[in-house]
Amino acid sequence: MKWIDELKFDGAGLIPVIAQDADTGEVLMLAYANRAALEETLKTGYMTYWSRSRAKLWKKGESSGHVQEVRAIWVDCDKDAVLVKIHQKGDAACHTGRRSCFFHEAGPQGLTAVGEPLFRPEDVYRS
Amino acid sequence: MKWIDELKFDGAGLIPVIAQDADTGEVLMLAYANRAALEETLKTGYMTYWSRSRAKLWKKGESSGHVQEVRAIWVDCDKDAVLVKIHQKGDAACHTGRRSCFFHEAGPQGLTAVGEPLFRPEDVYRS
Repeated sequence: MKWIDELKFDGAGLIPVIAQDADTGEVLMLAYANRAALEETLKTGYMTYWSRSRAKLWKKGESSGHVQEVRAIWVDCDKDAVLVKIHQKGDAACHTGRRSCFFHEAGPQGLTAVGEPLFRPEDVYRS
Repeated sequence: MKWIDELKFDGAGLIPVIAQDADTGEVLMLAYANRAALEETLKTGYMTYWSRSRAKLWKKGESSGHVQEVRAIWVDCDKDAVLVKIHQKGDAACHTGRRSCFFHEAGPQGLTAVGEPLFRPEDVYRS
């Protein structure tokens, strides 16, 4: 897709991607994509990221089944950030079992984990 | 604030920050903060970022008056991304005058700028 050519990837060939629930507006996670991840996303209709920790393409939900169906893709003014509107299968985007990865609220007492996991990671991630 | 010590800043001392409208859930922008920017944000109650292009602290709205009042701060599971819930003064977060920086919709025809600017940049950014 030619619009991918317009993106400004960083020195490592990556661009940050915000995943937002297309229906509720909840911000579920921030991850990174390279060109191949975006091409795979467009080809399949499901979010594929680049895993920086594992240094490989990462189809979100490949282990858990909690895939992200892409509804729309938006690019910001500087073309160096992407916002994807998605439908999250299984409701939970976070590997901890929570709906959103942004579950630590910052306050005077520090970070507080808010909300309960929707699944137990040990039930979902089996080797 | 001690929770800032828990954050994983990148090699350049930065962490990505997603600004989301606290009331509507709209994702308005993605920018970066360093430790000093977050400390300034906590001290003032208004978003301060680190401008990578100008290599200086950047109080959002310092030129336009379109400041961002902080309502809540969330941190993700890996503690390497921040989500701030804000109230955007002047409605427009983007320097182009648009409500959100994410105004390019990606599609088969490429990127399409959607929506009209709420202000004319030449009226707001005067030297």
